[in-house]
Amino acid sequence: MRGRFITFEGGEGAGKTTQARLLAERLRERGIDTVQTREPGGSPGAEEIRAIAVSGDAERWSARTETLLMYASRSDHLERKILPALEEGKWVVCDRFADSSRAYQGAGGGAPDSLIEALDEHVVGENQPNLTVVFDIPVEVGLERAFGRGLFETRFESKGLEFHQKLREGFLAVAERHPERCVVLDATGEVEEVAERLWAVVEERLL
Amino acid sequence: MRGRFITFEGGEGAGKTTQARLLAERLRERGIDTVQTREPGGSPGAEEIRAIAVSGDAERWSARTETLLMYASRSDHLERKILPALEEGKWVVCDRFADSSRAYQGAGGGAPDSLIEALDEHVVGENQPNLTVVFDIPVEVGLERAFGRGLFETRFESKGLEFHQKLREGFLAVAERHPERCVVLDATGEVEEVAERLWAVVEERLL
Repeated sequence: MRGRFITFEGGEGAGKTTQARLLAERLRERGIDTVQTREPGGSPGAEEIRAIAVSGDAERWSARTETLLMYASRSDHLERKILPALEEGKWVVCDRFADSSRAYQGAGGGAPDSLIEALDEHVVGENQPNLTVVFDIPVEVGLERAFGRGLFETRFESKGLEFHQKLREGFLAVAERHPERCVVLDATGEVEEVAERLWAVVEERLL
Repeated sequence: MRGRFITFEGGEGAGKTTQARLLAERLRERGIDTVQTREPGGSPGAEEIRAIAVSGDAERWSARTETLLMYASRSDHLERKILPALEEGKWVVCDRFADSSRAYQGAGGGAPDSLIEALDEHVVGENQPNLTVVFDIPVEVGLERAFGRGLFETRFESKGLEFHQKLREGFLAVAERHPERCVVLDATGEVEEVAERLWAVVEERLL
């Protein structure tokens, strides 16, 4: 039986990476073989593309070029890691996926929806996630957390507050457009609280 | 007045690079400010993408991922170098452009036409070349030349003879589909002969 494909989306400092690790552990405890991965990157080729896509000046790439780089990376990641795992019956928990292109390059960067949707149809197509959890948190709280962990290093985190506000709205708009796969999760509060809310969603939707 | 955009296409060892240099010189002698460039690459960002796209094993990227990388590189090159030059009234001579994606990733690699044409519409759109010269040469002759110059280093040159035959057919098919901008040039013979044939085409089409 094909595994389930779960993606985590949301702005900076929403706790996605920690929660991805905790969810993967909890699924494994239930006997579900689970692969934890992330985007951009996740496979050797995709990580190389990530390295040039996320480093350097904030204005290094136009939104259009950035979108193409992200989908090149996503194409490799899907072909080489995500789909083979799903076909072996494993579950995949992916920290960021296509909705991050819709939010970062689209809503935040201004890349046309028509470009993103054309790419998505060709690259993701029928392989949409079974569940997308949108970690929602006020922008100021998220950026404070991101600062706090000393990981304020990527081009995206260094963009202004207005950009991050557009991201949040972008993610919420995606969730509204795709209610069949998306759940908006309140990501404020302690790690354990968020993990419990998340587990309730996974149980309801997939178990 | 906007400059003219000339692209050179064709398989390995067809002499495009040498002819691009000679044509740029001849145009400059006529008082036409001319920029010589190449793909993949041509701008600092695009060259970085080129570096990961063309190096490594022949099967390093799927045709789909490779197509996305090439259009990411093309997007940057167009925005940062080709269009600014054309808008300043300069002519641009570009060694390889979008038809190389149609031939290498499409006809040769098997990437779907629908993907390539969707990308082309978004990235190149109205900025199609004013003239595309397809340097045509028998595959064996071209590969022998490529070997001879000791530049047999890219992933593409190391693919088999059948691949290169598909490339040649791919380029000829593009020329047939776009007669308004494409001219097929016999690229056999001495450098000077080919340069004269090329100049006759440029004079007739653009001067």
